[in-house]
Amino acid sequence: MMLVVLGNTELSLIDGISIAGANPELTKFTPPADAEYIFYDKPKIIDAIPVTPQGHPTPAIITKACYELAKFPISVVRAGTFLAPLIPHSHISDSVGRDFRKTTALPNAEEIMDKSKLLGRELSKIVSEIVIGESTPAGTTTAQAVLWALGYKAKTSSASPKNPQELKRAVIEEGFKRAGVEFGELADEPLKALKEFGDPMLACVLGISLSFEGNVVLAGGTQMLAVSALLKALNVKLNRFKIATTRWIVEDKSATFEKTAEEIGVEYYVAQLDFSESEFNGLRDYEKGFVKEGVGAGGAVYLAEKKGFSCEDVFKKVEDLYRKLVT
Amino acid sequence: MMLVVLGNTELSLIDGISIAGANPELTKFTPPADAEYIFYDKPKIIDAIPVTPQGHPTPAIITKACYELAKFPISVVRAGTFLAPLIPHSHISDSVGRDFRKTTALPNAEEIMDKSKLLGRELSKIVSEIVIGESTPAGTTTAQAVLWALGYKAKTSSASPKNPQELKRAVIEEGFKRAGVEFGELADEPLKALKEFGDPMLACVLGISLSFEGNVVLAGGTQMLAVSALLKALNVKLNRFKIATTRWIVEDKSATFEKTAEEIGVEYYVAQLDFSESEFNGLRDYEKGFVKEGVGAGGAVYLAEKKGFSCEDVFKKVEDLYRKLVT
Repeated sequence: MMLVVLGNTELSLIDGISIAGANPELTKFTPPADAEYIFYDKPKIIDAIPVTPQGHPTPAIITKACYELAKFPISVVRAGTFLAPLIPHSHISDSVGRDFRKTTALPNAEEIMDKSKLLGRELSKIVSEIVIGESTPAGTTTAQAVLWALGYKAKTSSASPKNPQELKRAVIEEGFKRAGVEFGELADEPLKALKEFGDPMLACVLGISLSFEGNVVLAGGTQMLAVSALLKALNVKLNRFKIATTRWIVEDKSATFEKTAEEIGVEYYVAQLDFSESEFNGLRDYEKGFVKEGVGAGGAVYLAEKKGFSCEDVFKKVEDLYRKLVT
Repeated sequence: MMLVVLGNTELSLIDGISIAGANPELTKFTPPADAEYIFYDKPKIIDAIPVTPQGHPTPAIITKACYELAKFPISVVRAGTFLAPLIPHSHISDSVGRDFRKTTALPNAEEIMDKSKLLGRELSKIVSEIVIGESTPAGTTTAQAVLWALGYKAKTSSASPKNPQELKRAVIEEGFKRAGVEFGELADEPLKALKEFGDPMLACVLGISLSFEGNVVLAGGTQMLAVSALLKALNVKLNRFKIATTRWIVEDKSATFEKTAEEIGVEYYVAQLDFSESEFNGLRDYEKGFVKEGVGAGGAVYLAEKKGFSCEDVFKKVEDLYRKLVT
């Protein structure tokens, strides 16, 4: 089964840091709208699917395509968002990650982790594998901050082909200064790194990962590197974990997915999606580095392939869904 | 797996109608506290387990005993309560059932049902049987109102040995007058009966029951008769449904469990619990008609028996848990 964990951080309101929404204010709607779109023709909380400022559709369209093809179960988890999705979801918290330049990001990290551990423990009794995706605007900045605090010279990806690495660096350095932390200083204090610089999604996925007893597929790009690094720093053996992501993440030269995954020692699966033949500009642009991953897209393809569907099948279904949206 | 569905209705604030709380105001805490107690030594939202005004412990102690013995998975669902439980739970709604003497009980019945159907559909992909318990103070009054509207001359049970049937009748008659409805008049309009006189738990359990494709064990007493009657009125075949309840419900002479179950045509399982040898007055009083059922107690015993535990094992575990509470 698949979980889609929703998080917000105040960092997504910084102009230019995230394009997981048509404008910074709309990133508040992105996680619930992504989740709702999986189950319905349109989101409920807002009358349009999440798009980049240039109009590229959310990767939830890939997750939805796989879900409709392969009919695996999906459960939505609200780790901590501005708004509740208007569909059934596991409620963990309604508080979002704070702006870590000004204050501790997750004062309630422990509470989120405790609740998520209980969730993971109960899931262990029902299924032997979980695929965990996420929707967290600006989540690559919190992930990079956590990785830096743990000592990884990592660059996380971005939903934009122009990865705002200079802005991310400035924001992270301001956060490190506020907390009085140097690069790598929290290598042995992963929970402090999470609390100071993380986001609710990271705390929730970490909690579920710690208590779930079966195999865990971390469905995402560089954000799931941060989860893997936190697990490793907590001395968890990574052999029951793997990351599932998309080709667009692995090929992203502005980030360090493969290098950092190897440093951490976590395996990964790569969904070989190809949108170059799409009839829609919004989807062809995925090949130019827009969007790339999110809402567990890579993990959803992993599950669809297990049920016998190919990346080509997924692509065709994505085309159908997009056609429905634009006509 | 087991679901515990939480609901509140404003009716529980009427003095004398419910003893699922030390006083009417405390019935607001009962559903979340019941759910929390299953997973922890004490509830989180309040520093004591729910008790009757005379101090009898919540039937959640039976559910918890079975859960700890047989280790089946439990998932908590907030159908509509005053307060959210401080544990992970599926969020359906935060609005409670209104006082049906004054207004329509569930203006959002459809929304609750739609969300619950989605939940049930996803659960169908994971498990082949679900056991659905509930915690809903004053839920026997809403259940009886629904049964009357559907044309069943039923008397629902009560957590008190002095079933307040005169008060229930007066409240229901006032509600029928407000809505301009006669006994049996909604036999062909079950969704109107639910909306006018029901509670969020009934709407949620009905929604899950409609979409879940496997076997459904309705874990409760006379409230689950109302769910069964609604299903029947919606022309659902009842062969994949059964009620699981306790001996104390079936033996309750102030109610009509067996007679009404037969009229509806729903099968039932009876947990043969016996607390007469308890060292604690609070538990021995279950034999005098206090508490009887709730939080899916009968269904939890059903699951424990499937895993090889006897009613005697459950009783011993309940004794242990109660000893922990009082010492």
